[in-house]
Amino acid sequence: MERIGLAVVGAGYWGPNLVRNAQQTPALRLRYLCDLDMDRARGVLGDYSTVKVSGSLDEVLDDPEVHAVAIATPAGTHLKVALQALEAGKHVLVEKPLAANFAEGRRLVETAEERGLTLMLDHTYCYTPAVRRLRELVRGGELGAIQYLDSVRINLGLVQPDVDVLWDLAPHDLSVFDAILPDGVTAESVAAHGSDPIGAGHACVAHLTIRLTGGAMAHVHVNWLSPTKIRTMVIGGSNRTVVWDDLNPGQRLSIYDRGVDRGVARTADREQALISYRVGDMVAPALTEREALRAVMAEFADSIADGRAPLTDGHAGLRVLALLEAASESLRAGGTFVDVRQEILA
Amino acid sequence: MERIGLAVVGAGYWGPNLVRNAQQTPALRLRYLCDLDMDRARGVLGDYSTVKVSGSLDEVLDDPEVHAVAIATPAGTHLKVALQALEAGKHVLVEKPLAANFAEGRRLVETAEERGLTLMLDHTYCYTPAVRRLRELVRGGELGAIQYLDSVRINLGLVQPDVDVLWDLAPHDLSVFDAILPDGVTAESVAAHGSDPIGAGHACVAHLTIRLTGGAMAHVHVNWLSPTKIRTMVIGGSNRTVVWDDLNPGQRLSIYDRGVDRGVARTADREQALISYRVGDMVAPALTEREALRAVMAEFADSIADGRAPLTDGHAGLRVLALLEAASESLRAGGTFVDVRQEILA
Amino acid sequence: MERIGLAVVGAGYWGPNLVRNAQQTPALRLRYLCDLDMDRARGVLGDYSTVKVSGSLDEVLDDPEVHAVAIATPAGTHLKVALQALEAGKHVLVEKPLAANFAEGRRLVETAEERGLTLMLDHTYCYTPAVRRLRELVRGGELGAIQYLDSVRINLGLVQPDVDVLWDLAPHDLSVFDAILPDGVTAESVAAHGSDPIGAGHACVAHLTIRLTGGAMAHVHVNWLSPTKIRTMVIGGSNRTVVWDDLNPGQRLSIYDRGVDRGVARTADREQALISYRVGDMVAPALTEREALRAVMAEFADSIADGRAPLTDGHAGLRVLALLEAASESLRAGGTFVDVRQEILA
Amino acid sequence: MERIGLAVVGAGYWGPNLVRNAQQTPALRLRYLCDLDMDRARGVLGDYSTVKVSGSLDEVLDDPEVHAVAIATPAGTHLKVALQALEAGKHVLVEKPLAANFAEGRRLVETAEERGLTLMLDHTYCYTPAVRRLRELVRGGELGAIQYLDSVRINLGLVQPDVDVLWDLAPHDLSVFDAILPDGVTAESVAAHGSDPIGAGHACVAHLTIRLTGGAMAHVHVNWLSPTKIRTMVIGGSNRTVVWDDLNPGQRLSIYDRGVDRGVARTADREQALISYRVGDMVAPALTEREALRAVMAEFADSIADGRAPLTDGHAGLRVLALLEAASESLRAGGTFVDVRQEILA
Repeated sequence: MERIGLAVVGAGYWGPNLVRNAQQTPALRLRYLCDLDMDRARGVLGDYSTVKVSGSLDEVLDDPEVHAVAIATPAGTHLKVALQALEAGKHVLVEKPLAANFAEGRRLVETAEERGLTLMLDHTYCYTPAVRRLRELVRGGELGAIQYLDSVRINLGLVQPDVDVLWDLAPHDLSVFDAILPDGVTAESVAAHGSDPIGAGHACVAHLTIRLTGGAMAHVHVNWLSPTKIRTMVIGGSNRTVVWDDLNPGQRLSIYDRGVDRGVARTADREQALISYRVGDMVAPALTEREALRAVMAEFADSIADGRAPLTDGHAGLRVLALLEAASESLRAGGTFVDVRQEILA
Repeated sequence: MERIGLAVVGAGYWGPNLVRNAQQTPALRLRYLCDLDMDRARGVLGDYSTVKVSGSLDEVLDDPEVHAVAIATPAGTHLKVALQALEAGKHVLVEKPLAANFAEGRRLVETAEERGLTLMLDHTYCYTPAVRRLRELVRGGELGAIQYLDSVRINLGLVQPDVDVLWDLAPHDLSVFDAILPDGVTAESVAAHGSDPIGAGHACVAHLTIRLTGGAMAHVHVNWLSPTKIRTMVIGGSNRTVVWDDLNPGQRLSIYDRGVDRGVARTADREQALISYRVGDMVAPALTEREALRAVMAEFADSIADGRAPLTDGHAGLRVLALLEAASESLRAGGTFVDVRQEILA
Repeated sequence: MERIGLAVVGAGYWGPNLVRNAQQTPALRLRYLCDLDMDRARGVLGDYSTVKVSGSLDEVLDDPEVHAVAIATPAGTHLKVALQALEAGKHVLVEKPLAANFAEGRRLVETAEERGLTLMLDHTYCYTPAVRRLRELVRGGELGAIQYLDSVRINLGLVQPDVDVLWDLAPHDLSVFDAILPDGVTAESVAAHGSDPIGAGHACVAHLTIRLTGGAMAHVHVNWLSPTKIRTMVIGGSNRTVVWDDLNPGQRLSIYDRGVDRGVARTADREQALISYRVGDMVAPALTEREALRAVMAEFADSIADGRAPLTDGHAGLRVLALLEAASESLRAGGTFVDVRQEILA
Repeated sequence: MERIGLAVVGAGYWGPNLVRNAQQTPALRLRYLCDLDMDRARGVLGDYSTVKVSGSLDEVLDDPEVHAVAIATPAGTHLKVALQALEAGKHVLVEKPLAANFAEGRRLVETAEERGLTLMLDHTYCYTPAVRRLRELVRGGELGAIQYLDSVRINLGLVQPDVDVLWDLAPHDLSVFDAILPDGVTAESVAAHGSDPIGAGHACVAHLTIRLTGGAMAHVHVNWLSPTKIRTMVIGGSNRTVVWDDLNPGQRLSIYDRGVDRGVARTADREQALISYRVGDMVAPALTEREALRAVMAEFADSIADGRAPLTDGHAGLRVLALLEAASESLRAGGTFVDVRQEILA
């Protein structure tokens, strides 16, 4: 099979990771690292690389040996860069979030579909062994009916100048929810509370409450100001509850046979609710350690080769965008629940 | 000094702890354990006790050697039991929450004040060495301006038949907030989100967002369904941030010199916001290990002897009640912010 | 069934725990707390107790309603106190270690056997739910062949004036080894290394290496000077390895299907060793929380009532003594391996 | 300044890390990756590298643009490869251990000294920010007199075919001891206990007890068979005790003001030892996160440029070898203490 020629666009924070992992993916042939700041691109590649540096997106897209583009530029530029790439007939892998807003994201999805090109989101966490297993546990039914989800992602983080903590961090949590929830369970409405205690100009601490189809509640806590780092997600089910602690490499997933069950006792003259408690064992499944971004690259290459949608396709990116937009509207409205757009999200 | 004669009312979940700690408090003389179910009371005292069992509150209150009553009955009975005790001229220590609603609580506070009697809340956590230190750190100014508070109290807990998880667990968090926040910083409004995935009839998982005077946000997460136990509070300040992990006996408090600072750079033609990061040391102060309920008993005895208000007096109980009532109203209203009553809360 | 009349002797560090748990054991009737320092004994019982205080062991042993004695005096007095009790026809529960040396311990075992009385060691850890399960896992064969044991018990501990850290702390580890190892696997020899960096007059830090029947090695690290507290035991088996972390109440036991296996590959001309790795799941079994000392009391009462040997009988105490004596001899000899006495240890 | 031309020899387990870090060190110019298995070397460099692959050490050493060699071949080959490099006038960085035995190591040290070349050990841990700080804490006197050291390095590790667990893992611990201990404090004798429960042909679990100048004891526990990973070192001092937990990135060092002090009380007629306990705060100093191997490369380049001995020079390597040899002798002798060679170790 011929290797897929790839250009990485953007040599900032995330670009170097794309460059490194692309080079380790046999199905890809990295041809360019493209950045307006060519010195920065050269610095990323180092002194020993045969990969070309370019300061011109036009030049890169004109090269017929470039079949695909991986975009790691700021979200505000995604529409322009990705659209130009798609219109040049290139497959596109794009950093989260898909675009600066839902309308722009939808335009990218539509363009990719019209042209039969792959549009994939780099929802990196969805490709970790832990989330792969979470997806199996939830969708395979082992957890039972999903009762609640709770995600905490706090750290002393880089305060972004252009986006708030919701747009910066919550896409991670929301894309994982999107990947693991069963078909037919989607976010219906969301309420967001935030605060900006340091005067950054936008929320640095935020809480999202999401109402899912069927009534379960999901909650996300993101925080740039925490002195300690926590990255934990709990998914409560009627049969099992699983805790994902991404900072515990020796025990990332813990599956608990613990919970509260409600039954009904029927006596001669009445029915009575009975609460019982399961206090069973915990199982921490063995997971292979693997760099998720390597799997992202492989999925990108495979979906291009097979002409199929990737696991995290443009629609997944659009669903995350729809949630973020509704959350921002809730934030502006003082925390009321706001409906999440459901159009073309299937 | 003569010892203060005490009766404990209620031999259920918490009463035995009151009995045990009262017996170890030199300033108190435990005379009765009172419960309608006298066998239960006898079981609590065991086979080797000289403390009297009574099934009659009247009998206990008629005894002139009983000067004070500690009440550990369900919240719905607090008004009746505590009122009767106050009207009999007895000092009262009452389990949280003060009463079933704000109006009942206010009546107790007013009655105690009219009669010059001590009315104290058993906000046990406020008497732990950790919260004592938190109070000093916050009120003494070491943390700087308070930027946010975040409290998580989740566990596989007893699903209560008569109250939801907010009324069951959040009084702990709210009473600690009340004890440590500086004078003049109070809860202005609260939004509550909850869910009842097991069909218990009321919320088993809940999130509170509280707007404080001055704009800081406090958040509380309480959950009866979690397979793992977490009891953590983070208090973010402009100078230091402290993490209280109540389940880590060797390091309950961690004080971080880490955070985000915002300054302003003035150049010839403009002002520009500058974000800087402090990444300094962490200090875990040595704390003595001491049973908090012992300190509750000592404070109750001392405040009676000195004729002064205890640290957690009726007003503190009333402020917690006001917050809980507003939270319940928010829950019913679908999560909107609801103002917290501020009357006679000083 | 008539309740067994009990006297607790010794109101120092451990005595109060015996008093409290005896009172909560229905099969026992606590009659005396006996201590030369009667004020100390009165302080332990508190102001509300009907239990008698005595300053005279003779008085206590003369009382025909005392059928059994629980001894919590210093080890150096065990021979005298326990012998007097046995000779008075009383069953005896004694704190670890059984006696100050092997000869004294043997005399107690022989006396109890001659008189048909129960002699039980308060090897408290052996009665925790965790060690009960460890015993099942090891003796039931689930772990496979035992490959190694490793126990760490370090803390900022009370530096004892009369015994070194080995005699103070290692009895815990050694009694657990004794309780869980399969029949026929015993300590054959032991080497001990110790140091006394603070000039206490005896070892404050010590390491034991024990050679077991069959060749497996057990190691014990005890330390009075550590600023952090660790109480962990690892038991490596050919099928499973279990880690017991006594300070993690939510996950005291972790059973790992992880390990190294050695096979042999036979090719035409030679045999070759093959190393393979199992990297399977971990299971943390659900354990009930129960105070071990309550189970000690129940076992003491049951073994008396049934006329059978308790789980931790005098022979178990003697085996621990034999190991401690050999370890002390090794310490004096500069760390060489010293054989452990095997006489009447069955 | 001209960049130092470097060749990496050995493309196995560790070589790729040397290659990667050398490329990121401005003072170095990586010219070759040399391995008899040229395909393996090509695989390490990947498809995008301008670094040359060579299968011939002669070719590499003949190149006048190669000034230095970094050796990551098995220990048994160190003498041959390093000697050839030194004789060709190249500076040498060599993986731990320096050589297969003391005699070979000494020959390398002598050869380097005769020729005025840098001979540096890749004792990687010594270049972590944590160990740098440990070195300051110990040698700067903040800890006071060193009372004991305890290092645990256990994991499910690769069972090596040619060396036992001591030679595989303990060099890490011993090289750290060597780097942090004050001048004049060295290992005088060592006792080693080991076991081989899987039939690997050499010890898979081992314990070292080391007697240091002045009487303090150091202990090392290394284990290939543990299902859990622990990498912890405790350094007890008379003023402070520090715990280094290398697996806790947020709190690698914890400095405790906790300990046991011994004083003397003088009364009219006698002197009495007084034991007192310090139970003060703990401080976790902020450490920068930095890849240690980057600092190794920088130190190698700097020591060449400055003509000075590196922090971990050949003598440090020789001291570690002397300890390992004595430990092996103790293992063979059944665990007795064996003196450590002190010749030319200054």
